[in-house]
Amino acid sequence: MSGIRRIVLDILKPHEPKITDLALKLCSLKEVDGVNITVYEIDKATENVKITIEGTNLQYDVIKEVIESMSGVIHSIDEVAAGRRIIEDVKTPQDRY
Amino acid sequence: MSGIRRIVLDILKPHEPKITDLALKLCSLKEVDGVNITVYEIDKATENVKITIEGTNLQYDVIKEVIESMSGVIHSIDEVAAGRRIIEDVKTPQDRY
Amino acid sequence: MSGIRRIVLDILKPHEPKITDLALKLCSLKEVDGVNITVYEIDKATENVKITIEGTNLQYDVIKEVIESMSGVIHSIDEVAAGRRIIEDVKTPQDRY
Amino acid sequence: MSGIRRIVLDILKPHEPKITDLALKLCSLKEVDGVNITVYEIDKATENVKITIEGTNLQYDVIKEVIESMSGVIHSIDEVAAGRRIIEDVKTPQDRY
Amino acid sequence: MSGIRRIVLDILKPHEPKITDLALKLCSLKEVDGVNITVYEIDKATENVKITIEGTNLQYDVIKEVIESMSGVIHSIDEVAAGRRIIEDVKTPQDRY
Amino acid sequence: MSGIRRIVLDILKPHEPKITDLALKLCSLKEVDGVNITVYEIDKATENVKITIEGTNLQYDVIKEVIESMSGVIHSIDEVAAGRRIIEDVKTPQDRY
Amino acid sequence: MSGIRRIVLDILKPHEPKITDLALKLCSLKEVDGVNITVYEIDKATENVKITIEGTNLQYDVIKEVIESMSGVIHSIDEVAAGRRIIEDVKTPQDRY
Repeated sequence: MSGIRRIVLDILKPHEPKITDLALKLCSLKEVDGVNITVYEIDKATENVKITIEGTNLQYDVIKEVIESMSGVIHSIDEVAAGRRIIEDVKTPQDRY
Repeated sequence: MSGIRRIVLDILKPHEPKITDLALKLCSLKEVDGVNITVYEIDKATENVKITIEGTNLQYDVIKEVIESMSGVIHSIDEVAAGRRIIEDVKTPQDRY
Repeated sequence: MSGIRRIVLDILKPHEPKITDLALKLCSLKEVDGVNITVYEIDKATENVKITIEGTNLQYDVIKEVIESMSGVIHSIDEVAAGRRIIEDVKTPQDRY
Repeated sequence: MSGIRRIVLDILKPHEPKITDLALKLCSLKEVDGVNITVYEIDKATENVKITIEGTNLQYDVIKEVIESMSGVIHSIDEVAAGRRIIEDVKTPQDRY
Repeated sequence: MSGIRRIVLDILKPHEPKITDLALKLCSLKEVDGVNITVYEIDKATENVKITIEGTNLQYDVIKEVIESMSGVIHSIDEVAAGRRIIEDVKTPQDRY
Repeated sequence: MSGIRRIVLDILKPHEPKITDLALKLCSLKEVDGVNITVYEIDKATENVKITIEGTNLQYDVIKEVIESMSGVIHSIDEVAAGRRIIEDVKTPQDRY
Repeated sequence: MSGIRRIVLDILKPHEPKITDLALKLCSLKEVDGVNITVYEIDKATENVKITIEGTNLQYDVIKEVIESMSGVIHSIDEVAAGRRIIEDVKTPQDRY
């Protein structure tokens, strides 16, 4: 078992610090392989971003601490993958979305 | 024959325990290679999630027990794959979805 | 020649036995490499499922027998692939679907 | 040169013989590598199916004979590929479909 | 430099000779690697087909001659690729189609 | 550094010289690996085409000269890629197209 | 850790200098592997372009300086990837875009 391999988070943050700084800070965690931060809404003082983090044995509490130390607020955890390999969400006809 | 290789489940669960904890618990089963948990609806007290589990000789009853021990309720089994290799659902013109 | 390599079936079945059990039963046939069962409609007493079976020299009559022994009814055969390799359905501008 | 490599046919046929039998019959031709038969419309006595045949030096007249011997009627040849390798239809902005 | 590598043509032709015969004729040109002929409209006496030809040093005039000798009329050249490797059309936000 | 690797151009040109000739002329430039010319609008006397050119150290001025010598007019440069490898345009939720 | 691996920027710029020149200038930075510049809106005096830059240890401030020295204005940073490997944005049912 390799613990949590991917976490997708919905975040609200002020424009500063920039997403480049937030990405670097998250990557400095030793369990993190890579981070993608995508901006999906920009307001006057804040921006909504989606953060995808991949790695091995990711620790949600540590990640949360880093994000909050950069003035970000976690709105929701939207996806998690765990295990020996990353499993993708499989589309089925029963999906209500 | 390698038994059940993939199970896709529709689950209703309270916000706590988190999906990170549920994913780790399911991955601790020795037959499980990986787990993906995707949130598709968030309500005040509950969330609807889709769980995709892949592995070898997956046991539905054991999985069900783990989910229920974490306060989750299985609404439906939406897809199952079994055999020497994982077969994907093939789209056909007769699909009513 | 390797006979029938894939059969896609539209099935109506009661909720019990579960699709996990039906998948395991179909995989116990020696010609079967893998089975995918996808639920596309759930009613009070029954569910409509699509079954994709891949293997070598698949025997329709044997498969039909297994499905009926599990209380399933075959509504239609929606796709068949046969031969040395599995050929996919090619989309053309003449497709009326 | 390796002659005709793929033929896509639009066929009207009675429900019997089944598409599993038609696929096996077409695969028994030595030039045929594989056959895919997809049902796109089911009526009371007949069904409309699309047949994709791949191989080397496929002979249209021989294929037509096999289909007619199984009570099928060819409505149209929808696509043909020929040559040393199978070339796919390239989408262009001029496509009127 | 390897000259013209792909030509896509819009053709109007009578039903006879068949597209299988036209494909074979085009493949008999030594510069041609493969041909795909897709029917996109069928009328009483004629059919509109799209022909994709791939090869090395393709000669438009020779191809035109073959098509006309089979009673086909070239309506337009819709795409051409040339060079050491086949370059695909890149989608951009400026595309007016 | 390998300079400009891809240029996508929007061109207006008369029907003659043909796009086969324009493609060959562009491929005769030693920096050019391959050219794709796609016609997206045909008028009485002119046609609008999109030209995708890939290579190493592509020179815009030289390419422009070739196109103008073949009676083409460059309406716009729609995409450029440069560097050690070709980077594709990444889709983001902020895309206004 | 390999720092910032991808930056996607929304830029407003005058028509001159051309995007070919801007791409070359950005590629001259030693941390940059490749640059893609895509034009998504053309106005009388200005154009809106999306710039995707990939490399290792990309420095936002240096990139900003280059863009501004070419008369470009950065409207927003739309995506950032950082770490040992480039992680793509994962689609989830919670995406509000």
